[in-house]
Amino acid sequence: MTTAEQLSSAVLVKGQMMAATQAVRNAALLAMADALERRTEEILSANALDVEAARASISDVMIDRLRLSEARIAAMADAVRKVASLPDPLGRILQEYKREDGLLIRKVSVPIGVLAMIYESRPNVTSDAAALSVKTGNVCVLRGGKEAIRTNRAIALALKEGLAAVGLPTDAVTLIEDTSRESATALMTAVGQVDLLIPRGGAGLIRACVENAKVPCIETGTGICHIYIDKDADPERALAILENAKTSRPSVCNAAEVCLIHKDVAEALLPKIYDRLVSRRIAEGKVPVELRLDGTAAKIIKGKAAGEKDFDTEFLDYILAIAVVEDLSSAIAHIAAHSTGHSEAIITQNQDAIDAFTLAVDSAAVYVNASTRFTDGGEFGLGCEMGISTQKMHARGPMGLCELTSYKYIIVGEGHIR
Amino acid sequence: MTTAEQLSSAVLVKGQMMAATQAVRNAALLAMADALERRTEEILSANALDVEAARASISDVMIDRLRLSEARIAAMADAVRKVASLPDPLGRILQEYKREDGLLIRKVSVPIGVLAMIYESRPNVTSDAAALSVKTGNVCVLRGGKEAIRTNRAIALALKEGLAAVGLPTDAVTLIEDTSRESATALMTAVGQVDLLIPRGGAGLIRACVENAKVPCIETGTGICHIYIDKDADPERALAILENAKTSRPSVCNAAEVCLIHKDVAEALLPKIYDRLVSRRIAEGKVPVELRLDGTAAKIIKGKAAGEKDFDTEFLDYILAIAVVEDLSSAIAHIAAHSTGHSEAIITQNQDAIDAFTLAVDSAAVYVNASTRFTDGGEFGLGCEMGISTQKMHARGPMGLCELTSYKYIIVGEGHIR
Repeated sequence: MTTAEQLSSAVLVKGQMMAATQAVRNAALLAMADALERRTEEILSANALDVEAARASISDVMIDRLRLSEARIAAMADAVRKVASLPDPLGRILQEYKREDGLLIRKVSVPIGVLAMIYESRPNVTSDAAALSVKTGNVCVLRGGKEAIRTNRAIALALKEGLAAVGLPTDAVTLIEDTSRESATALMTAVGQVDLLIPRGGAGLIRACVENAKVPCIETGTGICHIYIDKDADPERALAILENAKTSRPSVCNAAEVCLIHKDVAEALLPKIYDRLVSRRIAEGKVPVELRLDGTAAKIIKGKAAGEKDFDTEFLDYILAIAVVEDLSSAIAHIAAHSTGHSEAIITQNQDAIDAFTLAVDSAAVYVNASTRFTDGGEFGLGCEMGISTQKMHARGPMGLCELTSYKYIIVGEGHIR
Repeated sequence: MTTAEQLSSAVLVKGQMMAATQAVRNAALLAMADALERRTEEILSANALDVEAARASISDVMIDRLRLSEARIAAMADAVRKVASLPDPLGRILQEYKREDGLLIRKVSVPIGVLAMIYESRPNVTSDAAALSVKTGNVCVLRGGKEAIRTNRAIALALKEGLAAVGLPTDAVTLIEDTSRESATALMTAVGQVDLLIPRGGAGLIRACVENAKVPCIETGTGICHIYIDKDADPERALAILENAKTSRPSVCNAAEVCLIHKDVAEALLPKIYDRLVSRRIAEGKVPVELRLDGTAAKIIKGKAAGEKDFDTEFLDYILAIAVVEDLSSAIAHIAAHSTGHSEAIITQNQDAIDAFTLAVDSAAVYVNASTRFTDGGEFGLGCEMGISTQKMHARGPMGLCELTSYKYIIVGEGHIR
């Protein structure tokens, strides 16, 4: 089938998904999880072919993201079961207003309709996105990377088996067969068919979607996250948070890329930062952090001189750009100029500085004395996530079930006229 | 100044608006209202020039929308004062989650940043939009129609006077001086500067914005609203609601354009509808409704035969398209195919029909035994509105103060790392 035909078939079942009860949606999720486990062998065979074919063209890191194991499939199934156990995101009364004339106005959460997702090589995105979508009464149209197509087909078949088992339409989870650029463009421009497009992957993919989408699109992911160490910071906290934010998982979007230090504490703290992120890590046999320093910091500790782009780069690696700032306002201004609006932290014991920073910093997550690494649906108590929005409309920060719903007003009268 | 220069100046004051307290924002609103009244004479003089210049090129209806009077300016000032009296939309704690490890996660409402508005000839939009924007801590960039430019300049001057009186930056309300197509395009494509674009006006303007905007844009307004009269409708209610929804103000977006009638009651009800909307209105000296009938209805009452486009047209006039449908499902399917997602109503005494209709109809406002004319921020208890969203992302239905805010997470730890 062409992408257009697949999309049209998916749109047709929107009403059925909207009308399904929570009990049916949860039963479908459990059946989807069971089917994933039952079909482990087929999924692994398909995956082996994908890995074999991709070996020549993609990096080892990408191969690792692509490769499945029995344990990874079990984890995918568990994630689907976890989604089934979460509270019903639909039919929640968000607001209620009874007018003096008796007209009752209710704002109620409802599915969005058709969610399209364009993503890269990780096959677990296929089952995660499908699970979140079924739970929220939406139809999902999934367009994964070409390296994962055999794996995704096998996973989608299992998921459809689960939908069919409870009588839900199998097109509610539609895997786009064409993995060329054309199919991505078709989804981006399917006005009136795709209600929301969510790109998930590298910066290039996300930029392409945001720039070319004619349908509503949520910008996700890119994180140039800052840690600002104030003059009133507790030094030990600052060091522990900085090391955690930079090194606990450098490849993810909530890892810190930039450290700003108040000039009053730069001379005392920078040598300790060097010790913590470089010397000590070498001694402990860990990967040391490469420091890229502005002019002032370079006078105090050793490191590479920061180039023009180092304060605007999502390194996703053991690299940290460091700048010394005049004061809190300069830190806030630096963040406003260079941040992607993902996550930023202030380390300080000074309440005025906390208030000023949390008020002025315009990012999805603003931290006080904590690591930026917590920006995640699970960590925030949302149960799961579809990605992290760095835009301000509709959803900001981790997108859980709520963010995959819209709302409508239901107004009940007894012949009310105006 | 060029549009680009004006926009850059506006962006610069975003931080100041974000940091202003509620007391200052409300004081600004009261000063803005006072300045509007104090400058009534200047505004009326400017308006007289606009009306004079526009007389040759625009319709009487448009002239009426453009023309101000002392009373209309007083009403504008009162609307600004009303906005000042509403609860603070910022700093609301939308969710709070304290983890077992003590990390406190708060979701807090914040300004969006820079709102751009492209609108047509009604000058009160200038003061309404500015008031809502100041109340929500946003900066607004207003690009009105060229017919109203002198009036808008005089109004903007008064509004800026109010901002200056309390020490807020006057660029927080920026009226774009260039009223050519180029300035509209500049706002639509100002990625990274305009956080949200709201078009307000005719269908052509809205379509142009939705199709060409590179910045987030909210689709507003167009309403092809349906009244479905079920087989179990109370006939008297049905007639009263239909007449109200069609005739109480036909030029607005929440007026009904289409009536669907269940076939079992068509023969009994259609003659009564004819009587109510045509004969009786003629007898009472009111404007009768022109009926455009599908084949089945045309066999029962007199009226024009409905053409191909009559079920897809926002008449905004004393015209009603009528179709007889097989059953409730056919009515729902007709609405899904032809509605703009604004407001639809079912008239019935049957609870099963109510449940099915409210579940399946995917519009911003779904009415039970009430007129569609209630879809309005004021009527819904929101205090005011910026327009009515017909899209599903971010805002749906009337956009009040809440819909002009975003949120961020503020996370407070004591050295928490992950």
